[in-house]
Amino acid sequence: MKRIYFDHSATTPVDKRVLKEMLPYFGEIFGNASSMHSFGREAYKALEQARGRVAGLLNCAPGEIIFTSGSTESNNLVLRGIIKALGEGKKAHIITSSIEHDSVMEPCADLEKQGVAVTYLPVKPSGVVDVGELRKAIRPETILVSIMYANNEVGVIQPIAEIAQELSKRDKKIYFHTDATQAVNALDCDVNKLGVDFLSLSAHKIYGPKGVGALFIKNKSPLKGIQLGGRQEKNLRSGTINVSGIVGLGKAAEIAGEEREKNNKKIGKLRQKLVKGIIKSIPDLLFNTDVNNSLPSHAHFSFRGAEGESILLYLDMEGIAVSTGSACASGSLEASHVLSAMGVSEEIAHGSIRFSLGKYNTHAEISKLLKKLPPIIGKLRKLNPIYKK
Amino acid sequence: MKRIYFDHSATTPVDKRVLKEMLPYFGEIFGNASSMHSFGREAYKALEQARGRVAGLLNCAPGEIIFTSGSTESNNLVLRGIIKALGEGKKAHIITSSIEHDSVMEPCADLEKQGVAVTYLPVKPSGVVDVGELRKAIRPETILVSIMYANNEVGVIQPIAEIAQELSKRDKKIYFHTDATQAVNALDCDVNKLGVDFLSLSAHKIYGPKGVGALFIKNKSPLKGIQLGGRQEKNLRSGTINVSGIVGLGKAAEIAGEEREKNNKKIGKLRQKLVKGIIKSIPDLLFNTDVNNSLPSHAHFSFRGAEGESILLYLDMEGIAVSTGSACASGSLEASHVLSAMGVSEEIAHGSIRFSLGKYNTHAEISKLLKKLPPIIGKLRKLNPIYKK
Repeated sequence: MKRIYFDHSATTPVDKRVLKEMLPYFGEIFGNASSMHSFGREAYKALEQARGRVAGLLNCAPGEIIFTSGSTESNNLVLRGIIKALGEGKKAHIITSSIEHDSVMEPCADLEKQGVAVTYLPVKPSGVVDVGELRKAIRPETILVSIMYANNEVGVIQPIAEIAQELSKRDKKIYFHTDATQAVNALDCDVNKLGVDFLSLSAHKIYGPKGVGALFIKNKSPLKGIQLGGRQEKNLRSGTINVSGIVGLGKAAEIAGEEREKNNKKIGKLRQKLVKGIIKSIPDLLFNTDVNNSLPSHAHFSFRGAEGESILLYLDMEGIAVSTGSACASGSLEASHVLSAMGVSEEIAHGSIRFSLGKYNTHAEISKLLKKLPPIIGKLRKLNPIYKK
Repeated sequence: MKRIYFDHSATTPVDKRVLKEMLPYFGEIFGNASSMHSFGREAYKALEQARGRVAGLLNCAPGEIIFTSGSTESNNLVLRGIIKALGEGKKAHIITSSIEHDSVMEPCADLEKQGVAVTYLPVKPSGVVDVGELRKAIRPETILVSIMYANNEVGVIQPIAEIAQELSKRDKKIYFHTDATQAVNALDCDVNKLGVDFLSLSAHKIYGPKGVGALFIKNKSPLKGIQLGGRQEKNLRSGTINVSGIVGLGKAAEIAGEEREKNNKKIGKLRQKLVKGIIKSIPDLLFNTDVNNSLPSHAHFSFRGAEGESILLYLDMEGIAVSTGSACASGSLEASHVLSAMGVSEEIAHGSIRFSLGKYNTHAEISKLLKKLPPIIGKLRKLNPIYKK
């Protein structure tokens, strides 16, 4: 059975062109990029080429990019690193939203234990942050605002440029970070247009390898490293440079920029077919993705009377991979904090399935899903003693 | 010109067998190991197989291994994580040595700024930590001792089991960490024989990929995560699991264990030839590696009257890659803190070259070095106006 993958928000396969560029950097060109000899210099050259490619995608200077092990590290570094640079021994305040990824939520909770104040902005029912609420939340001691560019669960896009503009009106500089992990495939990530000071991304969400990511740090923005040692990456991220991974990220970034429009068009059509088909064939559901303000890849539904994990497992038996929310939170029985923030009741949130499409998906795959899903929902509802249509 | 690589302490090429095992985990088996569907389950299976292999190398339970981005992260995690778990709001004391890698030294310096007391033990002229000094340094508030297993610059081996025994005599538990990054290829890393609670290692030093490492955490040892988010790796190291990298580390660990003896024998003979040849043909040098208590791969010399970087660059022009110290510290003009701690004067320390041999080196390569090096030293000494033999 040829399996079908609709979970690109969790991770993506490595594009063959990306792997091809990476391959020489395992065995042949294997130097430590910090070494002075020729093996080191060729590794360094590859590192800097990749930095240029990522900078190209974000329209920034190569010197404004540092490499990390992924977005989780990038997010942790921004949150802790700016407090380390600006907030130690002082009153400090961070503003974020109530629908951020755990890699922002959990460091924020940890910083709260250390005495940093954190405001978690509410969102509208569509999942969008209210810029008016943000304005009200700003305090004299606000150091950082961290709002994701697009949400990993429902795919909703946040008004990053508008928030940046709001922040720029202040007398005192408030730094602005966006976690763009989910956005890079589909949205323009020009940091000048966005107006951000920090931007996080991961290679494995854009058809690159796992274990590598980047952080954009606008020229001269204050940040102190958390992982210390060999002073790599301007002393902001010590540890031997992961050359093969970074080469992969560079190529993946280049492809993401070049093929964004083409992929968006294709994936958007697939989503349209998926959404229409599901809404037509399955009653009593919530469609949690605002198609007019979301990543084209995402379609998030809550099916009343059917448990998300059961739907996932039944679809898995048919060779179709979907998710109940974020992969990171799987295993957790708590309802998604994103849906809660959007006002979805816990009861219906438990029947949630996220479809996240990718550039290799086909119409035939959507057709198969549309054939398989309705009877699964029907069966689960029949088995549910308290479900009454 | 076929180049020669004598810098295995900085990094190693990926063994072909390692790369072969990794390859399917980029494009074919690409799932997120936290996903519940079949793509996730096969990734998870690979993850757990790799964990078993690393555990096999260390003779511990698979549940005592977590994966990180490398030893720098593992070291940072132990040092910060144990303070987070046991030392917050209390008087806390760490003992380490004055010859540790920067990824131990710098987090220690950072913890000092936060009020943690740190003792940096002196070493004997051979580079070995004095266990008597360690005993004297212990305080009631000592939480952790962190001593590397083998040194990255001169290759000296520390008496880890003896230190563990000393610590076990105390009424109060003092946790013991060893950075085994340099040791894994050559030394028995059985954590029971060593008696450690934490052990760090990196894949790229054992013919595995860059960007991945592990931390052994003895059952129930207290530690709190620093990088937070998706709660992977028992919530001690969040971030999407780097499956291909971890598969590579697993295979590299398996090979390291199986072929250790064979490689040690081969590399030991090569070193013998190198050391004899250099001592015979070049006068007025220090040989800083105690051949009776060091990694068989390492030979560290200080050549009076010749500058290390110049030697490196001249050898590089001959296609021979060596290092002046640690790759991580290259670019720095300060004399090595390891040599300083061993009592080598700054003046002669500046003429240092580290040869670190690997399993692919040959006798012919050593012969070439022995032909090329003496005239280089001779030339540099001639050019040096203050050098008088």
